[in-house]
Amino acid sequence: MARQQVTRLVDPLRKLLRRGATGHAANMLHKLHAADVARLMLPLSDEHRATVFGLTLRDAPERAADLISELDRELAVRLLSDLPDEQVASIIAELDSDDAAELLPAMPEEQAERILALMHDSESAPIEGLLAYEEETAGRIMSPEVFALDEKLPVADAIAELRTSSEDLEMVFYLYVVDDRRHLVGVCSLRELLLADPHTALREVMNAHVISVTTHTDQEDVARLVARYDLLALPVVDDENKLVGIITVDDVIDIIREEETEDMLLMAGVGEGDEEGVLRASLGRSIWLRMPWLLVAWLGGMLASQIIGNFTPLLQEVVWLAAFIPIVAGMGGNAGTQSATIIVRGLATGKIAAAGGGFRVALREVRVAFVMGVLFGLLAGGTLTWFLADWHIGVIVGAAIATSMTLAAAVGTTMPMVLRRFGVDPAVATGPFVTTSIDVIGVLAYFAIASALLVFVG
Amino acid sequence: MARQQVTRLVDPLRKLLRRGATGHAANMLHKLHAADVARLMLPLSDEHRATVFGLTLRDAPERAADLISELDRELAVRLLSDLPDEQVASIIAELDSDDAAELLPAMPEEQAERILALMHDSESAPIEGLLAYEEETAGRIMSPEVFALDEKLPVADAIAELRTSSEDLEMVFYLYVVDDRRHLVGVCSLRELLLADPHTALREVMNAHVISVTTHTDQEDVARLVARYDLLALPVVDDENKLVGIITVDDVIDIIREEETEDMLLMAGVGEGDEEGVLRASLGRSIWLRMPWLLVAWLGGMLASQIIGNFTPLLQEVVWLAAFIPIVAGMGGNAGTQSATIIVRGLATGKIAAAGGGFRVALREVRVAFVMGVLFGLLAGGTLTWFLADWHIGVIVGAAIATSMTLAAAVGTTMPMVLRRFGVDPAVATGPFVTTSIDVIGVLAYFAIASALLVFVG
Repeated sequence: MARQQVTRLVDPLRKLLRRGATGHAANMLHKLHAADVARLMLPLSDEHRATVFGLTLRDAPERAADLISELDRELAVRLLSDLPDEQVASIIAELDSDDAAELLPAMPEEQAERILALMHDSESAPIEGLLAYEEETAGRIMSPEVFALDEKLPVADAIAELRTSSEDLEMVFYLYVVDDRRHLVGVCSLRELLLADPHTALREVMNAHVISVTTHTDQEDVARLVARYDLLALPVVDDENKLVGIITVDDVIDIIREEETEDMLLMAGVGEGDEEGVLRASLGRSIWLRMPWLLVAWLGGMLASQIIGNFTPLLQEVVWLAAFIPIVAGMGGNAGTQSATIIVRGLATGKIAAAGGGFRVALREVRVAFVMGVLFGLLAGGTLTWFLADWHIGVIVGAAIATSMTLAAAVGTTMPMVLRRFGVDPAVATGPFVTTSIDVIGVLAYFAIASALLVFVG
Repeated sequence: MARQQVTRLVDPLRKLLRRGATGHAANMLHKLHAADVARLMLPLSDEHRATVFGLTLRDAPERAADLISELDRELAVRLLSDLPDEQVASIIAELDSDDAAELLPAMPEEQAERILALMHDSESAPIEGLLAYEEETAGRIMSPEVFALDEKLPVADAIAELRTSSEDLEMVFYLYVVDDRRHLVGVCSLRELLLADPHTALREVMNAHVISVTTHTDQEDVARLVARYDLLALPVVDDENKLVGIITVDDVIDIIREEETEDMLLMAGVGEGDEEGVLRASLGRSIWLRMPWLLVAWLGGMLASQIIGNFTPLLQEVVWLAAFIPIVAGMGGNAGTQSATIIVRGLATGKIAAAGGGFRVALREVRVAFVMGVLFGLLAGGTLTWFLADWHIGVIVGAAIATSMTLAAAVGTTMPMVLRRFGVDPAVATGPFVTTSIDVIGVLAYFAIASALLVFVG
């Protein structure tokens, strides 16, 4: 069902829930895809969300598990926290192991432990296996249920195996081929299997050049490989090249979204981690996450005030200088942020190299900023000279704008590249760093130009 | 081959090319995946890139086509612009139609027309078909080669059809089922096909709830559907529900990356469109794209200077007020950008609704900013009082920082939501709009507080 249609169900559902017509509501929900139920729940009140979840649960534990795997982790944890442990355990057991391994660490530690203890060993073992790997690695996000067959098996038997295999396998479209010690030796698409002579061994049919990652591979690298080679899934091997899991493209899409959100939030200095965390963090934690970057801005501001303080005699004489501090700093700040954003994004996507490397792009940015600086400097200078009928102000403010925008582009392009050179994510607080440096540099340039010119003129 | 290993080949390749050892270079390139050759080319000089492309082309036109489809559009167009039309036509003919339809509009119009004219009708017709749809719609980005079979066909025949079908089909993993007038009526995975009784008709095996889009659907909505329902491919139908194409998940990943880059660049006011465009735009075009947002900043700056100008008598008396203009505006700017980024990203991913809606998130942001504002206000006030041994400055600057940060968060959260209400992408130049408004508001608050307090005190 298309998005528009689903959204249209929110009001009817809310009405049913308000009237307590849970039977009707259950009927409506029963027909929907779990992803759509998840979408419908978002605009509802906490109470109504709990009711919807309860109705789904009454429908079937598998339905509840499907819904849980579609919901934001935070919301899922909250809904589960109201249920008795036994019921939570039965839902978790229905989840794919990778979804369970994502959810459990977000639950209160004691609850998670009680739940794992309540589950059958056969259900909890694969989840605990995943939890043993570090966060954000291939081992943590993979699904351990991977379909693999022995290289010596004939194609006909392989097809028969596929027929009788459990339905639980996550989206089978590649058949991984292993040797008798489960080392990954090849891959073969279902389509190739269908096309092959039924009597040949898989070894003859398979493609031996199989792209794989190890359990330690960072999830960002997993996403890059899948995107670069247009893969539907990526097999995960342990240190001995034994096949231990699979990561499918749908999980990779989620990773890409998360990583890009992270970059954007980092750039603004809003803190690391995911968006749910940022949106739902407690007041104290929000402040804690943003504080360091505001402290940078604070120190920069104090430095700027120090600089201006040194020019007090000049200011006393020419008080109108104060009026143009914001425009000089602001134009620089905007130009610097423009350049910095281009560089940060270009480094993340690798497009900087395609455009001739960092130095060339930096030079181009500074040139663009210089031309714009001159244009806006002339505009400001002209306007001021016209309205104030005094060219001194115009020349000083115009020259300061041009200078501060050019320097801003230089800082905006250099800062992310330097951060990267030192092994820091270039997105880290590019915003606060750049705007603050430019406040300082812009103010300095402005007053230097002003005193030079005013002394010169007399 | 893993990323690290490929990157290691850059220097050896460069040495071979410098020595003119093209035979050795060709051998090295021949063994690599086209995506890896594309990566290797990025750091090379234009001349060496052309050599690498020439070697690939000498290898086989299909290899050259594979490479072209992996390269950035701009670079691909440049490499092709040096070749005779006949050769370009033979490469374009080897491309998937959707890749060709992406490339041709980026070429000089006359060259594109000459090339289409040189191609066989059977090759150019599907490309021209795609080009007839609007940019960024499902029709434009779909592949028209979609594998579909009649609902009345028995499973065994369907498998036989699949065996004999052309190899050209893009990643077949779903089998779409159509009626005798090619209306899309169902879908069935290859695996379901294998599991089914060979004698049943497809109609009995297929899933009739097939998620599809029309040729007019926006590519962002396509990406959302694929992400939400974890699809590997999405069928595209025309206005009569006839199956006309397919969009695969690998293309969707590219769309997601593009759209997120676009959002980030929009936020900084660097202009619309893709990154390549922004990175390689001519000086004039770069300036044209960034100008409007800098003009906003310019107008804001002039307004701020106007406001400060009105307080000239106050400034003349208390000249040190000027020194703290940057810190008041800067702290506000940073706090406002933090809030705005959270809102823009939250609106794009739909997480705002999950966190209780826009109003709740806005309130939370303002509360966070208020607490931070008070903390930094106290810090600034305390520091200034200590060092200057005069509490007037401290109180005024501290109060102004607290006020400007709180107001900044209000502006930063409201601005994107208002833009969205008016049907404008909330990412549009959030940066320049927010920082500029805050310059104005911050300055106003600062001088209002200062004059009130100084009048009051004495």
